[in-house]
Amino acid sequence: MQNWLTKRVDLTPERTAITYAGQQLSFLQLSQAVEKLAQQLASKLDDNPRVAILTTNTLTGYEMILALQQLGRTVVLLNYRLAPTEIAYQLNDADVTQVLQTDSYTESLANVQQLPFSEITAAPLAQVELQSNFDLDQVTTIMYTSGTTGKPKGVEQTFGNHFYSAVGSALNLGLSADDAWVAAVPIFHISGLSIMMRSLIYGMEVRLYERFDVKQINADIINGEVTTISVVPTMLKSLLNELPVGATYPSRFKTMLLGGGPSDLATLNKAQLAGVGVVQSYGMTETASQIIALDPKDALPKMGSVGKALFPVELRVAHMTTEGVGRVQVKSPTLTVGYLNKMDKYEASFEDGWFDTGDMGYQDAEGYLYLVGREGDMISSGGENVFPNEIEDVYQQLPEIKEISVIGVSDEHWGAVPVAVIEFNQGQQLTHQALVDFGRQHLAHYKVPKNYYRLTNDWPRTASGKIQRYLLQENTNLDDKIL
Amino acid sequence: MQNWLTKRVDLTPERTAITYAGQQLSFLQLSQAVEKLAQQLASKLDDNPRVAILTTNTLTGYEMILALQQLGRTVVLLNYRLAPTEIAYQLNDADVTQVLQTDSYTESLANVQQLPFSEITAAPLAQVELQSNFDLDQVTTIMYTSGTTGKPKGVEQTFGNHFYSAVGSALNLGLSADDAWVAAVPIFHISGLSIMMRSLIYGMEVRLYERFDVKQINADIINGEVTTISVVPTMLKSLLNELPVGATYPSRFKTMLLGGGPSDLATLNKAQLAGVGVVQSYGMTETASQIIALDPKDALPKMGSVGKALFPVELRVAHMTTEGVGRVQVKSPTLTVGYLNKMDKYEASFEDGWFDTGDMGYQDAEGYLYLVGREGDMISSGGENVFPNEIEDVYQQLPEIKEISVIGVSDEHWGAVPVAVIEFNQGQQLTHQALVDFGRQHLAHYKVPKNYYRLTNDWPRTASGKIQRYLLQENTNLDDKIL
Repeated sequence: MQNWLTKRVDLTPERTAITYAGQQLSFLQLSQAVEKLAQQLASKLDDNPRVAILTTNTLTGYEMILALQQLGRTVVLLNYRLAPTEIAYQLNDADVTQVLQTDSYTESLANVQQLPFSEITAAPLAQVELQSNFDLDQVTTIMYTSGTTGKPKGVEQTFGNHFYSAVGSALNLGLSADDAWVAAVPIFHISGLSIMMRSLIYGMEVRLYERFDVKQINADIINGEVTTISVVPTMLKSLLNELPVGATYPSRFKTMLLGGGPSDLATLNKAQLAGVGVVQSYGMTETASQIIALDPKDALPKMGSVGKALFPVELRVAHMTTEGVGRVQVKSPTLTVGYLNKMDKYEASFEDGWFDTGDMGYQDAEGYLYLVGREGDMISSGGENVFPNEIEDVYQQLPEIKEISVIGVSDEHWGAVPVAVIEFNQGQQLTHQALVDFGRQHLAHYKVPKNYYRLTNDWPRTASGKIQRYLLQENTNLDDKIL
Repeated sequence: MQNWLTKRVDLTPERTAITYAGQQLSFLQLSQAVEKLAQQLASKLDDNPRVAILTTNTLTGYEMILALQQLGRTVVLLNYRLAPTEIAYQLNDADVTQVLQTDSYTESLANVQQLPFSEITAAPLAQVELQSNFDLDQVTTIMYTSGTTGKPKGVEQTFGNHFYSAVGSALNLGLSADDAWVAAVPIFHISGLSIMMRSLIYGMEVRLYERFDVKQINADIINGEVTTISVVPTMLKSLLNELPVGATYPSRFKTMLLGGGPSDLATLNKAQLAGVGVVQSYGMTETASQIIALDPKDALPKMGSVGKALFPVELRVAHMTTEGVGRVQVKSPTLTVGYLNKMDKYEASFEDGWFDTGDMGYQDAEGYLYLVGREGDMISSGGENVFPNEIEDVYQQLPEIKEISVIGVSDEHWGAVPVAVIEFNQGQQLTHQALVDFGRQHLAHYKVPKNYYRLTNDWPRTASGKIQRYLLQENTNLDDKIL
């Protein structure tokens, strides 16, 4: 396939490609800026086919990613929020020798050359040959999974992965020449990068924000500037909460694509009143973004579901229990072609050609998928499978509880039992008995945590904010038992 | 990829799949009807992996094609208008043993079993396993090219060809859940079949018409029933001419996708006044429909152009003359994987991996493609390349001329010279001198036909109505010279 950026210049040179902090570039202008950067990079880069980048959502960072892609380099997208030791692990694993970094990054990284953006944009232009074609089988990006259960894995994403991801999304959400998609999620994550790739494939405007500025984004939406936004649950809530009572979004604004967890009823109701469709979705770095999505009209009748597999995607739930809960497995042309240096782990993820997501779930009679938790989080208690998520969701309704995490601890009689670690809201607390009583009202007996502990340290979290239960289990002091 | 029809039942069971003569079927209903037909077919079909079908645009014909596809058979789509000897050639070439035919077909075909639809729909149900997956590399349909230059060739189209065709079209025209596409072009041609395949891939309503009933179709468009229609030039003209003066189409109606030749200025102006975009396009059976298209906003500034290559398609003009005219060559994932039994011809169509379309054309400075004619039609006269189309277009402006075709005849001095065969309008004629004088006003000297002949027989045409110039040259009596 022809290089997507040059193809866009051929097809829609005047159409807006990106808007950032008041600047607006057409595809022609973006292409020219990127080509110039590629020429400057050529005078700075060594021969390593992999180049890492450390950037927030800035126009220059955006252009740098595209410039590396134009040069045919594999872009290793580093999470800007990681600690230097975490970054060092990834750089070493990916055998990277040079890191392009936004000027505001001040940490020192060992064994690599760090190239601030300002040094690149000041460099002389070297002659380069840009990649004329994008081979769908070629790995163009590598991202490390946040790793709720171990060492990060470098996920290799091909042009074909990104292409089919964009196609699957368009077949689900539709497509129009005047679409404009807000990228306020990080472009170093698949959620943000997939918006960039869609922009090239669709000829679509991206509205890039360095920070999730809820007031500014709401103002831009209300002003009719965009059609679509990718959000995680907290962003969705913030946008809707900040909307003045009785205000609605304009009809141009069609879709809030929600990843990273389900939405709650109150938020979905607010979205409906505001006149925008919330598309809850499920996907991962390994599938180059969403592969399962819920039609907004099903949001209330199918509350809690992540929906159905997109057109190019196949889904099955394998190894089902008698209640129909099993492993979520998929086939998809968006599926990564490998974990860098961990092909054994990659191959071990497959069963009969199906990729095992590591998530557990079930499908209802009409095929809608519901997730119940990660495989590793499942607690096997007296022959019953207990999923922390379900228990947490119930307790999260208590106003005294700020956050709760449920883990399994071994038990002589039951094999394992659920216990809860709780962070109370400022000045609040509950007794053991009150917690047990509440659980028994809403949960099967075996799902009610046997013991409750007060959080004594910070929550151990991944870079993307998810609680790492396996660390909680190992490291958290479980002595502060609630009586 | 999962079977597209069953996938549609999973994703959008209630959405309308097809409307025909007042009947409306959802994807669930269509799937049930198709599955029943497949079970009935199973009790009638032999083991031949290829099955031919002879049908006009009827609901039963539509369902039969899908049923054969569900059974994993390769569907040989026969042109209903062909003579029995022409059909016999294709049946023999494709090694077909059974032909499903609409009941109104009354001709006898040798060496095959003819199965009228009514016999199939009355057959008992047999157990069958429907194809669970559509392998993108699998040949699912075969269509014979109309052959302006020789024996028809069986074009093998894979699921992948149809998938990428639908994707390329969506990336160009956009996509919406409420799209509805008129299929009044034959479903045995790629123009019609590609609408059927898009319907499965997009989850889109097809509005099927057995005949091009201009009044009914215009009424349905005005009534807001559809968003898109595929047309050839005469259909486009008829629709716009029948529209009451001052009337406009509703905003829901977005696109008239024009194939089979360019439009004229008057028609484009009418379309603009009627408020609908005309997307002129270029494609062929070998590319599973359109691969090049002209944005409606470019229709007037780029008059005469067929546009630019769709997103998944690459285009080049090779072996250019000094004026930039050359062979139109393409790369496309929609490109046929072979000509049945004529792989030598197929392979001979490629140059450095580019498929040679057999058309001649040029690109302007902004990359828009203009076609000047078929390679075989080009006349090499005194070192100049002369294209019949250009000359015909000029003479076609004369009100006395009903139709004109220009061919080359050998000439001792110039190598070859253009001559014209003319069909005058009833009671009209022009002298040799008048024709020469008119030509000299509008054309370079060497392009003005040396001699003019009155048409003495019928025009030799392909099944799709194109004049076969090579037969004109060989067979037409060129004695009735205009003096």
